[in-house]
Amino acid sequence: MDIKRILFALVLSHLFAQTVFGQHDRQKVRLARLVIDSTQLEPYKALLKEEIETSVRVEPGVITLYAVSENDKPTHITILEIYASEEAYKSHIKTPHFLKYKQGTASMVKSLDLAEGLPLVPGMKIK
Amino acid sequence: MDIKRILFALVLSHLFAQTVFGQHDRQKVRLARLVIDSTQLEPYKALLKEEIETSVRVEPGVITLYAVSENDKPTHITILEIYASEEAYKSHIKTPHFLKYKQGTASMVKSLDLAEGLPLVPGMKIK
Repeated sequence: MDIKRILFALVLSHLFAQTVFGQHDRQKVRLARLVIDSTQLEPYKALLKEEIETSVRVEPGVITLYAVSENDKPTHITILEIYASEEAYKSHIKTPHFLKYKQGTASMVKSLDLAEGLPLVPGMKIK
Repeated sequence: MDIKRILFALVLSHLFAQTVFGQHDRQKVRLARLVIDSTQLEPYKALLKEEIETSVRVEPGVITLYAVSENDKPTHITILEIYASEEAYKSHIKTPHFLKYKQGTASMVKSLDLAEGLPLVPGMKIK
């Protein structure tokens, strides 16, 4: 087998792996659990909503930011965050819209717990 | 205005409301937080995975079941559950695949906390 054939086989197997495994294997999945100052809940939610809508619209590497406020504890917010890769996340936290949210809400967030995780079914969608 | 015109206007406004608001307004969104017996984690995950894949495939009203196990606490699993409506949820918990999961995992689940919530951005997807 000559070098060209070896290279060709390597490229093919790389492309195959990218297609079959790569897309979801590189994803960063995280649960952000926040408790918000109850007197500032509405402005907090407005800033988070703006940040989420902008991120998902302009950043291809932000796969989802699904935020839920609990009915029984409306100040408790959980965000399912999915990024295409660690690099996509690092790029996200440098964007002007993220920095605006982060700085604008600093005094509103009473606690923030970040837990990285693994999806049980990678590639799961929202219909 | 005769009765036919009134009926026509009512049907139109109903269809408009369904299209613009209805789809997400009726959704049931819930966070399920589970702690699993560490000695039974792998069989638990296999049963949950099977249940999720079947539900999403065969039930149009199961919009997503996104399950995450935490890297630092692998026995802690959070599931973002979205159903098209309360009726879709009630139908889901009567399916053979859900009952198989529920009965099969009863002895594996140490705790289960269910919190209904509201999405901050209804209609958010996973790219």
